[in-house]
Amino acid sequence: MTPGPTQVPEQSLLTLARQVTHHRTDDFRALFDRVQAGLREILQTENDIAILCSSGTGGMEAAVVNLISPGEKMLVLHSGKFAERWSTLGQTFGAEVIRYEVPWGEPFEADRVAEILAAEPDIKAVFGTLCETSTGVGHDVRAIGQVVKDANRLWVVDAISSAGIVQCRTDQWGIDVLVVGSQKALMTPPGLALLSISPSAWQKIEQVDQRGFYFDLLAYRKAKSTSDTPFTPPKSLLAALAESVDILLQEGIESVWARGVRLARTTRAAVEAIGLELVTDSPSTAMTAVKLPESIDAKAFLARLESRFGLKLAGGQGPFRGKIFRLAHMGLTDDLDIIGALAAIELVLKEQGCPVQLGAAVTAAEAVLAENADQKQPF
Amino acid sequence: MTPGPTQVPEQSLLTLARQVTHHRTDDFRALFDRVQAGLREILQTENDIAILCSSGTGGMEAAVVNLISPGEKMLVLHSGKFAERWSTLGQTFGAEVIRYEVPWGEPFEADRVAEILAAEPDIKAVFGTLCETSTGVGHDVRAIGQVVKDANRLWVVDAISSAGIVQCRTDQWGIDVLVVGSQKALMTPPGLALLSISPSAWQKIEQVDQRGFYFDLLAYRKAKSTSDTPFTPPKSLLAALAESVDILLQEGIESVWARGVRLARTTRAAVEAIGLELVTDSPSTAMTAVKLPESIDAKAFLARLESRFGLKLAGGQGPFRGKIFRLAHMGLTDDLDIIGALAAIELVLKEQGCPVQLGAAVTAAEAVLAENADQKQPF
Repeated sequence: MTPGPTQVPEQSLLTLARQVTHHRTDDFRALFDRVQAGLREILQTENDIAILCSSGTGGMEAAVVNLISPGEKMLVLHSGKFAERWSTLGQTFGAEVIRYEVPWGEPFEADRVAEILAAEPDIKAVFGTLCETSTGVGHDVRAIGQVVKDANRLWVVDAISSAGIVQCRTDQWGIDVLVVGSQKALMTPPGLALLSISPSAWQKIEQVDQRGFYFDLLAYRKAKSTSDTPFTPPKSLLAALAESVDILLQEGIESVWARGVRLARTTRAAVEAIGLELVTDSPSTAMTAVKLPESIDAKAFLARLESRFGLKLAGGQGPFRGKIFRLAHMGLTDDLDIIGALAAIELVLKEQGCPVQLGAAVTAAEAVLAENADQKQPF
Repeated sequence: MTPGPTQVPEQSLLTLARQVTHHRTDDFRALFDRVQAGLREILQTENDIAILCSSGTGGMEAAVVNLISPGEKMLVLHSGKFAERWSTLGQTFGAEVIRYEVPWGEPFEADRVAEILAAEPDIKAVFGTLCETSTGVGHDVRAIGQVVKDANRLWVVDAISSAGIVQCRTDQWGIDVLVVGSQKALMTPPGLALLSISPSAWQKIEQVDQRGFYFDLLAYRKAKSTSDTPFTPPKSLLAALAESVDILLQEGIESVWARGVRLARTTRAAVEAIGLELVTDSPSTAMTAVKLPESIDAKAFLARLESRFGLKLAGGQGPFRGKIFRLAHMGLTDDLDIIGALAAIELVLKEQGCPVQLGAAVTAAEAVLAENADQKQPF
């Protein structure tokens, strides 16, 4: 239950075991079109979808090199490890990076973004994050999108660990480029980065001279006109993604988002019931980041969860290293998975000397679930 | 039986169907080390192996951006579609590309390479191809490697469609960077590019300022010191690759190469027995490219092979479009697969009006196989 890679549904795993066939074929084109149509529904967009064979970072690199020419200004909303990656990418490729920085664990203010954009008319695009995976903060992508749109700039959002579980209305919220990874809420093995690209983004991309080669999005758009990819696609992963997307669509994207909200509320209520504190007051519904009591050794705590219960959670990064744990409620996760994880957490905390009342976390979790008795279990 | 993606062994496919687990773990590190050790044996190298999540083209881009700074000279040995990709990559990233061009289907002369390197002392590296997939030419990577080494330059070889079936002694032949794809002779789905990198290549890479971000090989080297990857690796594909590598090593790399030679000789003898002509006098043992009689419509021929016999071959590219077919004898291909393919070829040629003697191709093939009665079947 780390924030990715997540569990993959059986139906998608079995697809991976099917023999590999060629990709310049009608069956590939049908698969390719089907997965794009499904992704458009999940991401709530009419925009083009580019599918890259890379990790999520490759998708972020594609967004930067296609949208920003060397010397141009980009604004990065900076609040954690993955926001930092936007800056590093911009600097690597010669952009002038302007930062709006808030402490790890805090959200951005849309008004401040508006001020910066007003003061810096040369900023071409704003780069932000839907869920900052290092802190569990859910940023207000809708409100920021409004000010970015009002200032007539491009809005680029890293939704790698959150699209497909956190509400994300790409078009309504004015997101010009959304970057998503296969291995998080989309329940597919790592290896695919997905980008939705708005008409305004395409206009800017056409003006950028040096878009690289492997990540040149115009090559992907050109190939897509015949339902092809510019380079050999990882067809097995695409076939698995198509299955996982179908599973999400069968649940319905609004229901998936509601499940994320329910599991997040359940988790927060439970950890607070045993006296733990959340890392942020603005938590995402993709995951919950929780401060550990000072008496608890984070490494030993995570190791014991894994060795005793087979439960893998994530620890902290950067300033939170050794101080927090992160539990994801995305992808193939349902009510009882969360209940089990919470039981394991309180049992191991108790075992490691923390004065928790056994059962308190699970009791608080059940109280939230009791209020949601009519919500169906998807898996 | 196209030159990739090729069939994947059952054992590797079943591995793909296993649940995805996290990668910052001891089991991942063991897998990662195991697959690198296996690849070093297959590629006959002691060099570092970098494993990228990308198509083969991503591996080629990594070689170019890491070795050549903008404005530096690179020599491209130019004889087909994939050699052309080296040039395009060089130009895209600001290198000064010098070409030694021979017509499609012809090999390079090592002496000419030596002359060019003597005349152009600023050339930093030579970029060539082990098997040019668009023409089926097997280039003399050993002889060229010798002159490149004598001239104290770097030798970079695209072996995407050939390493693991064509003899390739990376270290003995002085290959500084070898680029390999997962989906060809290595019998794994597409999605991984593998590079072997010599100490001399690392020295040059350290001097290049702008190596990109996703493809920055120094980040891969740094992560590899702890058996990690810089970005989320496609663990499922890596696990499948480990299985396929084991299968090749069980056969033994020398036996694999011998199988390639045998299947190539068998194929050539058979197509010549029915009056067809090879595209090149310097064929690779990875694949055979064959000219079609003018009376045959290539598209209809390939479509009929597929619809009647379920046999997928590749057609021509560039100047060979509509004029040739290409049959690969790499990966999960044994004697009887080749016999079947040859039977299909002569049956469809006959059906489409070509005056072939039915059975002649297969008879010639059997004559070659009869001389090789002691060679074991690997699969």
